[in-house]
Amino acid sequence: MRGVVMYGPGDVRVEERETPTIVEPTDAIIRLAATCICGSDLWPWRGADDVDATPMGHEYAGVVTAIGDDVKNVRVGDFVVGSFFASDNTCEICRAGYQSRCVHGEPGAPTGAQAEFARIPLADGTLVATPGQPDADLIPSLLAASDVLGTGWFAAVAAEVGPGKTVAVVGDGAVGLLGVLAAKQLGAERIIAMSRHADRQALAREFGATDIVEERGDDGVTRIKELTDGLGAHSVIEAVGTQESMMQAIRSTRPGGHVGYVGVSHDVELPGQELFFSGVHLHGGPAPVRRFLPDLIQLIWNREIDPGKVFDLTLPLADAAEGYRAMDERRAIKVLLTVD
Amino acid sequence: MRGVVMYGPGDVRVEERETPTIVEPTDAIIRLAATCICGSDLWPWRGADDVDATPMGHEYAGVVTAIGDDVKNVRVGDFVVGSFFASDNTCEICRAGYQSRCVHGEPGAPTGAQAEFARIPLADGTLVATPGQPDADLIPSLLAASDVLGTGWFAAVAAEVGPGKTVAVVGDGAVGLLGVLAAKQLGAERIIAMSRHADRQALAREFGATDIVEERGDDGVTRIKELTDGLGAHSVIEAVGTQESMMQAIRSTRPGGHVGYVGVSHDVELPGQELFFSGVHLHGGPAPVRRFLPDLIQLIWNREIDPGKVFDLTLPLADAAEGYRAMDERRAIKVLLTVD
Repeated sequence: MRGVVMYGPGDVRVEERETPTIVEPTDAIIRLAATCICGSDLWPWRGADDVDATPMGHEYAGVVTAIGDDVKNVRVGDFVVGSFFASDNTCEICRAGYQSRCVHGEPGAPTGAQAEFARIPLADGTLVATPGQPDADLIPSLLAASDVLGTGWFAAVAAEVGPGKTVAVVGDGAVGLLGVLAAKQLGAERIIAMSRHADRQALAREFGATDIVEERGDDGVTRIKELTDGLGAHSVIEAVGTQESMMQAIRSTRPGGHVGYVGVSHDVELPGQELFFSGVHLHGGPAPVRRFLPDLIQLIWNREIDPGKVFDLTLPLADAAEGYRAMDERRAIKVLLTVD
Repeated sequence: MRGVVMYGPGDVRVEERETPTIVEPTDAIIRLAATCICGSDLWPWRGADDVDATPMGHEYAGVVTAIGDDVKNVRVGDFVVGSFFASDNTCEICRAGYQSRCVHGEPGAPTGAQAEFARIPLADGTLVATPGQPDADLIPSLLAASDVLGTGWFAAVAAEVGPGKTVAVVGDGAVGLLGVLAAKQLGAERIIAMSRHADRQALAREFGATDIVEERGDDGVTRIKELTDGLGAHSVIEAVGTQESMMQAIRSTRPGGHVGYVGVSHDVELPGQELFFSGVHLHGGPAPVRRFLPDLIQLIWNREIDPGKVFDLTLPLADAAEGYRAMDERRAIKVLLTVD
């Protein structure tokens, strides 16, 4: 099969790779309906994370083609969506809703989902079957549910978004934009998207943003304060992962408010004393997407949400490198790769 | 009147100071029934915070001797307890329960409560009158409510302590010990006190601790994991404020669990990546003691709790310096200073 491999910063190739097969009796193999590039894939592309002939991709939706002997919850032929983190969904941590920290879990599994097929460990706990075979126009949204939608949703839940609240969103990538969508669904009264790109501002408004703030850093914080009677937002979603974005999020939150942070943390050091006196709640990390998948799939199935709109560029798998470039240069929000 | 003044590290003197009077129409003056030394007073005593002929003390309980023209909620003769942070208790932040960040608040007010009298700003919002004049044996507990009890209680609430939960407490000072008491009152199933001092272990058990862990740092974390099926505690109370204690608290918490931190942060830098992947909730800061005061006063009044037991040394105000030394050398958990 063909799959995407990264050899180093800026060096992505589509190669012939071995088609995965069942290794553990709890595995499933899926044929991807489509695959995509994640904002977090840009960290190694830009040299911030190490790679060494690394198969890329951790977002997936598609049809089960084989299952191991122990798999009971999905069958060959089912259309499934799963999380980037394989989990048994039965351990005490999973049952508490933190499947991304499952005690039997496999971080980063499946790897290499930018490909025609993928092996999914712990299939029973990881995969959720859709109510039937989806119409083609639902595929992008179901693929988004696998990570960016679930991650934006978790950020909103971690930030305790709810009715009557003012929410600020730091980061206008796919996760930030879907954080806006989640905030709207969770009943936020006011949603302030922080973005200086017209296309992303437009999508943020379509997803439910009521205000746009173009300023960043401390200027951005000042604007948020101006919009919130000097207090700061009740809930702030952080979807970048840098020192600047984390401090922008913390400083934009009122005392007693909540920061939900899901940008993969890079070179961040939080100053203890400032955090202490801020009085905010801080929660985040790798999103337990599996917790939200059944509800998110249903919302998509019912066409109540259309998170697939974050895909503003579609390319064939063979052109994956161009997809990485387009996202790196912010010419695309998120790239869908077709595998037919 | 006599009051405690700190001139530099290790240099505390009891001096004649001007007796406070009404300055603002929202002020009240109280005659202290007793006063005390806080663990946080040891930071400047040890040279970690600057002082310059600074009147010391922020914990107080006593009788109102004068009120400003705008004060309506307390009267001369009332016995009152208040928080170390003066708050109007009516602003949006106060109403959300974060009186320690009141938009009209006065941090650190009152200052100089290690004295015979103190001026309390924003008396209507800050002070809570007891149901009547307290019996003498209740004075230590009411004084404890002013800070250390309210702070330990807030830490337990911030750590989402509740029925069925396992709670670990980092720090065996008065706040940590009262965090144990709070955890017990809030229904925790198991309470692990981290302490290597026999007298503090005994008081922790009396307050409700079910287990004692003597190890610190990563060894302490290992012990907590051993006691919790390898998962970590659901809720961890941090009551020290150092890098080691914060990391011990975060690492002792299971993914999805809660850290409530109230130790005043000193030279702490939280590593973003570790925090991200820990998946814990983090909340804390200067405790909004005022939120809890009515309930805490009632529990004391009903003799359901006896937080005054943290005072294991009583000295006359004139011997304040010896009180500081005793706490610094850990010969005393907390020192009560009589003002008669």
